[in-house]
Amino acid sequence: MSTSFIRTLREDPADAEVASHRLLVRACYVRRAAPGIYTWLPLGLRTLGKIEQIVRDEMNRMGAQEVHFPGLLPADPYKTSGRWYDYGPTLFTLEDRKGGDYILAPTHEEMFTLLVKDMCSSYKDLPLWIYQIQTKYRDEARPRAGVIRGREFIMKDSYSFDMDDEALGRSYQAHRDAYERIFTRLELDYVPVNAMAGAMGGSHSEEFLLPSPVGEDTYVRSAGGYAANAEAVVTVAPEPVDASEVPAATVVDTPDTPTIDTLVALCNERYPRPDGRAWTAADTLKNLVVTLTHPDGTKELLVVGVPGDRDVDMKRLAASVAPAEVEIATDEDFEGHPELVRGYIGPTAIGPNSPNRRVEVDQDGNERLTGSVRYLIDPRIVDGTAWVTGANIERCHVLNLVKGRDFEADGTIEAAEVRDGDPAPDGSGPLEIARGIEIAHIFELGRKYAESLGLTVLDENGKARVVTMGSYGIGITRVLAALAEVHHDEHGLTWPIQVAPYHLQVLATGKEDAVFDTAQALSQALSDQGLEVLYDDRRKVSAGVKFADAELLGNPFVLVVGRDLARQGTVELRDRRSGERRQVPADQAAQVVGEVLRQALASVPDGRPA
Amino acid sequence: MSTSFIRTLREDPADAEVASHRLLVRACYVRRAAPGIYTWLPLGLRTLGKIEQIVRDEMNRMGAQEVHFPGLLPADPYKTSGRWYDYGPTLFTLEDRKGGDYILAPTHEEMFTLLVKDMCSSYKDLPLWIYQIQTKYRDEARPRAGVIRGREFIMKDSYSFDMDDEALGRSYQAHRDAYERIFTRLELDYVPVNAMAGAMGGSHSEEFLLPSPVGEDTYVRSAGGYAANAEAVVTVAPEPVDASEVPAATVVDTPDTPTIDTLVALCNERYPRPDGRAWTAADTLKNLVVTLTHPDGTKELLVVGVPGDRDVDMKRLAASVAPAEVEIATDEDFEGHPELVRGYIGPTAIGPNSPNRRVEVDQDGNERLTGSVRYLIDPRIVDGTAWVTGANIERCHVLNLVKGRDFEADGTIEAAEVRDGDPAPDGSGPLEIARGIEIAHIFELGRKYAESLGLTVLDENGKARVVTMGSYGIGITRVLAALAEVHHDEHGLTWPIQVAPYHLQVLATGKEDAVFDTAQALSQALSDQGLEVLYDDRRKVSAGVKFADAELLGNPFVLVVGRDLARQGTVELRDRRSGERRQVPADQAAQVVGEVLRQALASVPDGRPA
Repeated sequence: MSTSFIRTLREDPADAEVASHRLLVRACYVRRAAPGIYTWLPLGLRTLGKIEQIVRDEMNRMGAQEVHFPGLLPADPYKTSGRWYDYGPTLFTLEDRKGGDYILAPTHEEMFTLLVKDMCSSYKDLPLWIYQIQTKYRDEARPRAGVIRGREFIMKDSYSFDMDDEALGRSYQAHRDAYERIFTRLELDYVPVNAMAGAMGGSHSEEFLLPSPVGEDTYVRSAGGYAANAEAVVTVAPEPVDASEVPAATVVDTPDTPTIDTLVALCNERYPRPDGRAWTAADTLKNLVVTLTHPDGTKELLVVGVPGDRDVDMKRLAASVAPAEVEIATDEDFEGHPELVRGYIGPTAIGPNSPNRRVEVDQDGNERLTGSVRYLIDPRIVDGTAWVTGANIERCHVLNLVKGRDFEADGTIEAAEVRDGDPAPDGSGPLEIARGIEIAHIFELGRKYAESLGLTVLDENGKARVVTMGSYGIGITRVLAALAEVHHDEHGLTWPIQVAPYHLQVLATGKEDAVFDTAQALSQALSDQGLEVLYDDRRKVSAGVKFADAELLGNPFVLVVGRDLARQGTVELRDRRSGERRQVPADQAAQVVGEVLRQALASVPDGRPA
Repeated sequence: MSTSFIRTLREDPADAEVASHRLLVRACYVRRAAPGIYTWLPLGLRTLGKIEQIVRDEMNRMGAQEVHFPGLLPADPYKTSGRWYDYGPTLFTLEDRKGGDYILAPTHEEMFTLLVKDMCSSYKDLPLWIYQIQTKYRDEARPRAGVIRGREFIMKDSYSFDMDDEALGRSYQAHRDAYERIFTRLELDYVPVNAMAGAMGGSHSEEFLLPSPVGEDTYVRSAGGYAANAEAVVTVAPEPVDASEVPAATVVDTPDTPTIDTLVALCNERYPRPDGRAWTAADTLKNLVVTLTHPDGTKELLVVGVPGDRDVDMKRLAASVAPAEVEIATDEDFEGHPELVRGYIGPTAIGPNSPNRRVEVDQDGNERLTGSVRYLIDPRIVDGTAWVTGANIERCHVLNLVKGRDFEADGTIEAAEVRDGDPAPDGSGPLEIARGIEIAHIFELGRKYAESLGLTVLDENGKARVVTMGSYGIGITRVLAALAEVHHDEHGLTWPIQVAPYHLQVLATGKEDAVFDTAQALSQALSDQGLEVLYDDRRKVSAGVKFADAELLGNPFVLVVGRDLARQGTVELRDRRSGERRQVPADQAAQVVGEVLRQALASVPDGRPA
């Protein structure tokens, strides 16, 4: 420690909101070089290397082969696949000295596809699984939480190449199994959730989430076994309703009702329902105006209608409109749309039957909407349902506006938030909502890249067939942060032994040479046993600081050589995680401590089926 | 081999000029992704990893600590140090989504300096040696020779931080020793050459060159022990000459003399010297017009005068004018300079005494040259020497133009080529010229970066002192290519065992199951001994192809299981490098071959002093 490049901090860094970020900086694992871009210091690099090795080990064991692509890539393949355009500002782009377009790799589907096209030509070459552990670059709008969401990060990405869907299914399953072994070996809790819209779920795409309150991903699960990320949840639409008894729609005065709550209160006060049922937020229909920016740069206004008791979930909305980017419409966006009466927008002014709607047919026969905007509604807004909603007149709403009778929409959209208790799409019961950190993603790509980049091989009959692919990623740097998120306490990090920078930290406390000599000798003896030992040999640092540093650094065992050595000839072995302490005679310590550490290493789960 | 991602090529790639490039592509170690940008395939990645591990091992052993910086860096520190401007188009630059300037790291002096500034504050923190093995980016104008000069490449760069020059000297020596151990372990011949101009040589900066005819670096050495790269050689200037006997300068007609040779021939024919000595190329003074582009983008014409028997060495010239970039002047550059009569340029029109020379003094009192260009000459052109050179008149030269009598220059410049037999600057005898590949560079940086970025620490007296630094690089990917350059024959690669992808390649030849069963069992048995075995189990591939592939791949030992198995119960062990063959009874092969391989591994030099 006296010569090591480790400088712990007593104070939390100002920009750190989550525990892993705070502790990794304070314990000197990483330092920020730029927003979302970090330097790995010796301790961090050791832990990173151990995570990488576990991942590499399981990838090799499953039969995947390691390669390494450049980080700086020619843009052409990404133009061919369309991602040069789809990625938008998240893609780091640059020109070389000759004016050629280049990108910093956000992920490598195109390059792997081209490499296999270059090297393989026959069905005999497949299945093929290749992977790399490599730096990726994404210019995130909001890098956050240290290395959890960075702009430069390390990913293990693998790709499978198969002749048909069935074989792709096997490649997918092999990766899924390997990922389960990896996270088991890392002692990282994980929930595989369905990441593709579709009521039946299935195995086409799954995210591995670490349940964590600081996670950015919302996911749901049912007691019956359904699990999906919020973006993949398909709303269970109710059956249409008989609206024959619903009174005619009525426009009413609704002054001072800036919120759904004030609107509901006013309606109950001034316009009570004849049958005595109170109006609730669930009876209202709110319409949110958003701006889509399509990959080609064109902008489009869109109105999204959801029941007033639910918020629009911008991430679900974003997933629904991808690859377009979505933002709340600004004042500017409203210009030229007098039919959009802000605060009082209702379907009758914007729906396909509205008087403001015009469809132009251009010379190629394509229909183009003009005059008003597209209107998409939540799937719960079925025919026959009646709503309190905007009347398109200042200070006025309309009561009993019935879908199918009084208004129509251009279609449905998954944009409303998913809530605790919503029914699972597969009928497996009510959903429960949780947050998680996405640590991995497996995905049946199919033929998208192989088709656009021309990857075919000859089948048994000598016929060219387009290859089908899968893509499988693990966020290595994010996994490190996720481990820190799970394994820490109020004093610092508490790594599992298989990823800790060192197996043991040896502390010499006090001033006597004998203490330092013994600590030095024990450190050496344990290193000679092949164990990884960090020896805190600092002479002018107090025992308190040494203990605090050891707890902050989070190595799983601490061996204290201090005053007990002279008093009773013992040293103390502490288990960082359990807090357990044990006195060991100094002259047996090398052997006893070595045995404890070897046992701890041997009891790390190996991910094999029992 | 039947499932491995290895596809050898029978043909040389069209763009490959040097053996390492040809063989690394043909043997499936690398594939080109873009000019100067390569993808590492499984075999290449294995060898790369072994080289990295040897480097890491020796860096750790010397006490350096490993860190890892980002590849994408904020431009600000490079603006502060000036390198943002100095690097010119070799620097890959880009903007992030917020318009911030970023670069792809060409090397990391600035970032290391800032990290140490962030983490260290006292003389007690020094000396400090930190290093990384990391990807670098340089937008080379002419990437060449595969990974020898790429635009994305891997480098081990370390930096030392010390209080004073003496301590820096120790850090420098420690790195020098580690580098010698590294290249000894890699069995890579190396010549440390002085890389800093200065007759005395010394240890301020040395390059480690691998002698190789395909190397881009020219270096020299003397029998007396002097060694330097060509750029560092200082010309030994002769003593001034007494010119009192030299006739007056005479302008003569010299039609049809486009070259030095034709000029010399014409002078001997028409204008023989009175004393009967023939004119030679060494009597002529040729003047080359070049354009400098300064880091701030301004351009300047420069005339360089060298004796006519020597070429201008553009690399020596470039080193002399750095950080300006230099190119031969184009037609455009000549515009506005009627005094430069192309083909007949002579000192009298351009030197400081010439009638075309004007010096303007601007309002700040700075002198600025106008009217004609700067004129720098080779140090051999001393006072009293007489020259045949351009007369600044079409078709005319001047004889007996004497330096100091008839013309002056603005100074001297090291631009002329160094030749076999030139005297060593330190008086150690004539120089011998060779070519080499630069595989490492060690450099006493001094206080340049620490000063510009404000890295100080407190000394024993509590006084802030600027830290002095060293910078030490090894081109990892280039070392791999250099190894291939040295270790190959006409059939393919011939790796030393410590860097070969595998220790042994096992070939099953023939069609009998017994052959394949034995080969499989032996491969397994040897793998179980911890040896690295590549088993060529391909059933439908001829023995000839298998042998050719094994030779191309270059693993150091090949075990052939073929027809001798049935005939006489033996298998054949071949040494790829010596060609030696040895029959081994199949039932003892696992043990015998294992022993041979272990011996080969044990006899790898360990770089320790004997």
